Amino acid sequence: MQKLSRHRRMVVLTEGQLGLFGAKTAASVIRYRHQDVVAVLDSERRGEPMAKFLPWGHDIPIVGSVEEALPLAPDALLVGIAPMGGQLPQRMRAHLIAAIEAGLEVVSGLHSALAGDGQIGQSARQRGVRIWDVRETGDFWQVSTARAATLPVKRVLTVGTDCVVGKMVAALELTEAASTAGWDASFVPTGQTGIMIAGWGMAVDRVISDFVGGAAEWLVSQVADRQVCFIEGQGSLGHPGYSGVALGLLHGSCPDALVMCHRPGRDRHHGIEAPVALLAEQIELTEAMAALVHPCRVVGLCINTAEMEPAQARRAIDQAADQTGLPAVDVLRDGCGPLIKALGQALGMA
Amino acid sequence: MQKLSRHRRMVVLTEGQLGLFGAKTAASVIRYRHQDVVAVLDSERRGEPMAKFLPWGHDIPIVGSVEEALPLAPDALLVGIAPMGGQLPQRMRAHLIAAIEAGLEVVSGLHSALAGDGQIGQSARQRGVRIWDVRETGDFWQVSTARAATLPVKRVLTVGTDCVVGKMVAALELTEAASTAGWDASFVPTGQTGIMIAGWGMAVDRVISDFVGGAAEWLVSQVADRQVCFIEGQGSLGHPGYSGVALGLLHGSCPDALVMCHRPGRDRHHGIEAPVALLAEQIELTEAMAALVHPCRVVGLCINTAEMEPAQARRAIDQAADQTGLPAVDVLRDGCGPLIKALGQALGMA
Repeated sequence: MQKLSRHRRMVVLTEGQLGLFGAKTAASVIRYRHQDVVAVLDSERRGEPMAKFLPWGHDIPIVGSVEEALPLAPDALLVGIAPMGGQLPQRMRAHLIAAIEAGLEVVSGLHSALAGDGQIGQSARQRGVRIWDVRETGDFWQVSTARAATLPVKRVLTVGTDCVVGKMVAALELTEAASTAGWDASFVPTGQTGIMIAGWGMAVDRVISDFVGGAAEWLVSQVADRQVCFIEGQGSLGHPGYSGVALGLLHGSCPDALVMCHRPGRDRHHGIEAPVALLAEQIELTEAMAALVHPCRVVGLCINTAEMEPAQARRAIDQAADQTGLPAVDVLRDGCGPLIKALGQALGMA
Repeated sequence: MQKLSRHRRMVVLTEGQLGLFGAKTAASVIRYRHQDVVAVLDSERRGEPMAKFLPWGHDIPIVGSVEEALPLAPDALLVGIAPMGGQLPQRMRAHLIAAIEAGLEVVSGLHSALAGDGQIGQSARQRGVRIWDVRETGDFWQVSTARAATLPVKRVLTVGTDCVVGKMVAALELTEAASTAGWDASFVPTGQTGIMIAGWGMAVDRVISDFVGGAAEWLVSQVADRQVCFIEGQGSLGHPGYSGVALGLLHGSCPDALVMCHRPGRDRHHGIEAPVALLAEQIELTEAMAALVHPCRVVGLCINTAEMEPAQARRAIDQAADQTGLPAVDVLRDGCGPLIKALGQALGMA
């Protein structure tokens, strides 16, 4: 696994998709590594203030071309989107070629490896520029046998009622809060953006489907000597596109506790027409499915209220707590206090 | 998808693993295509009667080397095993090289593509011999959006309480029984052995994990104009190695009815130490998971009694029926009559 962390002057490409939920990868990379981002590249939004799209945008300038970013001395271009199916949008191609010609390294979490793209791969080889396809897993051939259950590290997995509800953010915030509370805690990245932020990991949605549980098992084994780890969840057990990945991760990582992430008010699954099941039903089913391999409980809720006013958000969070009897927070509004307390009790670390 | 069906004089390689559950692929290819098999290659069992290992062995000779099989004029060597993880056992290598040198085509359902194996791939290219890696899916990049639910074909999926319980055999036998009953029925192969038998399909456990549901969706779309299809199940929702594949297939294929396959008396999952949940519990959970995308019921049971005496088998089948209130048969002992009747009612085809 190549490490991204040496890049300190990145340009984040969003071309036409800048926004909280449009460019999920950009939003999170800027949230957690804003000090390493010199510009956002989006010709539709050139010159507009970042705060309009991401409240945590830190006045990062929005440029309209690679050329315009060059005076900022960038060292890499990072593809800031994570579209369904993971293909490169055609309109991003010219920016990638321009970045390569300017000598910038390219970082991408798309399914379609850019190094294997005829035009882009060839340009990079000619110019002697590296492409880091973060999602590439190489030859990974490990079948899960539920070995993770035998590891000393306590395992917490963030699960979700849908895709794009904040499972990665929850795991990152919980890791930081646990560390602050004095636990020896590690974040376990399972997807492209988590890998870009943490500098290691494996995209479990990219491995051969027979080995998705084995990938989860391998990831947890990398932090076996820590006190506790927070595993970034993927997909949702109810989303027909990604439920296989979600279950492989649940069974392969053998969590000791779950944190359920939920966006209230969403009644259709992300990107498709299928309905989202009720929160309480999803909690019950997730626990039942976990118990087939390694029993554990949902001990708290992360309620994503990013698109709500404060009073509406408070009502939504309280309602989720009332419906389930579980502690509920929006980790970005409220912090992780109640969740860390609940986890401490559930894991015997209080 | 390349078709196997033109091979009419196959040698099936089992080297050291001949038996009902040791060489799963060989057992099923011989069951359903015995007229196209001229020999089994297993140097440990050379000259022994096939009936000792497979009751449906049809007096196929067991040879100890490729050379010994050549007078039978074979046209292909088929790798007859499906090991956990799908790697080539070292001891099979010499037989494969000998087959290639003798000009036989090679057919393999292993995860590790033989065409990409240095020594074997090179030998095949030098000799001008084709290798058919049945599990290779090429570039498949389709995310499931539960489109299968909108297709006119009625979809029946065989699911299982574990791996290696007879989900493929159940789907094949049900397809034949349905055809005999006058339905326009098609078998949908989702794994390497099913593909070898039917001559088309896709190994859903070989695609990138994000696309396992999409692969199921694509497979069903190939038989959209038939009256009913019987989809070969994979893995089990409770097996930590393969639960992701099982759920992706369940959600991607959007079945209208399920047939649960079960081997009584097995209390640990195939190949590992994890316990197998109770039959009734697995039925309930499978239906609940299906309902997250497309509701359906388990309408009957296939009880695998291959290792039981007749009286013991009868008791086990009756017990499963009593425990669940569902029609139960061993399709190889009893035929599919009660299941076809139950499916006819459930699907409105009675």
